[in-house]
Amino acid sequence: MGRMDGQNYAPKGKPAPVCTQGEFLVGVIGLDHGHIYGMCNGLTEAGAVVTRVWDEDGAKAKAFAEAFPSAVIAGSKEEVLTDPAIHLIASAAIANERGSIGLEALDAGKDYFSDKPPFTTLEQVAEARKKVAETGLKWFVYYSERIHVEAAVWAGELLKGGAIGELVSLRGWGPHRLSAEKRPAWFFEKERYGGIITDIGSHQVEQMLYFSGASDATVVSSRVGNLKHPEYPGLEDYGDACLTTDNGIPCYLCLDWFTPDGLGTWGDGRFFLIGTKGYIELRKYIDVAASNESDNVIVVNDDGEQHFKVNGTVGFPYFGRLIRDCLDRSETAMGQEHTFRAIEIAIEAQMRAERIR
Amino acid sequence: MGRMDGQNYAPKGKPAPVCTQGEFLVGVIGLDHGHIYGMCNGLTEAGAVVTRVWDEDGAKAKAFAEAFPSAVIAGSKEEVLTDPAIHLIASAAIANERGSIGLEALDAGKDYFSDKPPFTTLEQVAEARKKVAETGLKWFVYYSERIHVEAAVWAGELLKGGAIGELVSLRGWGPHRLSAEKRPAWFFEKERYGGIITDIGSHQVEQMLYFSGASDATVVSSRVGNLKHPEYPGLEDYGDACLTTDNGIPCYLCLDWFTPDGLGTWGDGRFFLIGTKGYIELRKYIDVAASNESDNVIVVNDDGEQHFKVNGTVGFPYFGRLIRDCLDRSETAMGQEHTFRAIEIAIEAQMRAERIR
Repeated sequence: MGRMDGQNYAPKGKPAPVCTQGEFLVGVIGLDHGHIYGMCNGLTEAGAVVTRVWDEDGAKAKAFAEAFPSAVIAGSKEEVLTDPAIHLIASAAIANERGSIGLEALDAGKDYFSDKPPFTTLEQVAEARKKVAETGLKWFVYYSERIHVEAAVWAGELLKGGAIGELVSLRGWGPHRLSAEKRPAWFFEKERYGGIITDIGSHQVEQMLYFSGASDATVVSSRVGNLKHPEYPGLEDYGDACLTTDNGIPCYLCLDWFTPDGLGTWGDGRFFLIGTKGYIELRKYIDVAASNESDNVIVVNDDGEQHFKVNGTVGFPYFGRLIRDCLDRSETAMGQEHTFRAIEIAIEAQMRAERIR
Repeated sequence: MGRMDGQNYAPKGKPAPVCTQGEFLVGVIGLDHGHIYGMCNGLTEAGAVVTRVWDEDGAKAKAFAEAFPSAVIAGSKEEVLTDPAIHLIASAAIANERGSIGLEALDAGKDYFSDKPPFTTLEQVAEARKKVAETGLKWFVYYSERIHVEAAVWAGELLKGGAIGELVSLRGWGPHRLSAEKRPAWFFEKERYGGIITDIGSHQVEQMLYFSGASDATVVSSRVGNLKHPEYPGLEDYGDACLTTDNGIPCYLCLDWFTPDGLGTWGDGRFFLIGTKGYIELRKYIDVAASNESDNVIVVNDDGEQHFKVNGTVGFPYFGRLIRDCLDRSETAMGQEHTFRAIEIAIEAQMRAERIR
């Protein structure tokens, strides 16, 4: 299970602690998806300490504790939830179980940080919203394809700085390598992973809300299908959707599991921001057939065409903000309603999707 | 009116005559769009001779006759239509007049070659289909973004050769530079140019039918808008559409008039073909921020990542086939029904488009 599958996408940033050592402690529950490494890398670089980890699978817990030596393997989930020193519960459990773990975390008085997709049904979103309102606690989501990609973080700054004028439209896609033989059984069970738009499409929806500055979007159309993998009947290998944001930005997102073996990384993720005065293309993980360097930001405006390679230069401010939000009870990392609405729109697109095959 | 606006897109190929000099004569009626130069370049390189030209605007006719010295300026449209030596009438009249000129051409016993969009209403398509059936004559359309782009021509060959396995999905876009001050009045009158999907989207639809090998496609959703040009109320500056072909290929196309001044060409047209074993990206007119060379074909498959620059190596077989089809009464350049159905689908997408703004 290497990085090339995208399952263990866990970029390394520069340590930039926002708190003192021991001031912010994290407990981990659920290691079903390798994203937990990226989540805990980001938190640790920002000053957090992972103190406890629990998973039903002892081998997974052991591997995690080797990567994060501060983490003690807990004897039960409750041992993590009831540890009074822990501020935040992080989870990359199976997708359809992330919601209920979050409810338990908030009930235990902890903030919560879920891998994406944080939910697989609209009911789970509603329950989480209710629990947040009741408890005043926080429910974060690891929408890594923006918050853990320096090119995407920087694109947000460029846009705010007026580099391409006013925003006109957005489109982006997240092709992924399937590596079916390395995937767990739940990956092929739609009820558990939630469908392709819910799962990997929620990244794109979040970006569309973020870059547009919109608080909502309408699903104009969406499609899913198992186009070429009859041997995995529960898999959706293709999905796409058209959204229009509530501030009038037409968006298109597309997902697939067809990354070929010959690509130098797990997926040629792109994102395009079109503005009145220029456009930005993000080649997030590779500059295909040119360079294996990630975080390529191409900016075209009245100044001409520029290609920036921003890997290692931008950092990941989300994690430090998340920690400060927990400690200060502020909301700087990502709006709570934005966090919820992004996945909710993805689930709406998933539910109404036209089935191609 | 330079090439950088895309209005005079007229690539030069290598002369490759398919007939003897004087065997295939062309008359031109209607010079409202600069595409007529690309159309006649392609025909001339393939062995045609342009013998007569007519346009209401004498200055346009004069400029054309300077570029094609074999062309005599006619005193009337009828003089072109009734010249018994002429085999084919070519026209880049105003979009909504191209259909009626074609009807006249076929009534005069000539085959017809129209700039795109060849029609702006479904009624015009129906009339043309009927006239073709009645006369047995041919109605060609200059879908230049495939047939006059070597990268696109070669992509078709790669796909047929199995370079990316079976086709899974298609997406592509044609951003264009507006250069509003250089555009004629009819460019801003929707009834005359037909709307953005009809106009520049018909290129994309044609490619989707061609690459998928489908005979038809359904419009899943479409959007148009004048997002940022209130000073030109008749302009649509944005359009997109999702199509699903009758052989199950999901397609997405997108158009806009927002190419920034700093781009080294008139538009960063792209096309992506996703297959089971790889994908192809076409950077048709520029490799942005890397090279001004056109016709970039990036192929990723189990052999790795390759970037081919095919400008000057592929040629434009469409034109020679068109001439042979006229002389031999064959159908090798493009199927007549494919030619009609591509624009018809574009008009359908245009008509049902959700208006964003």
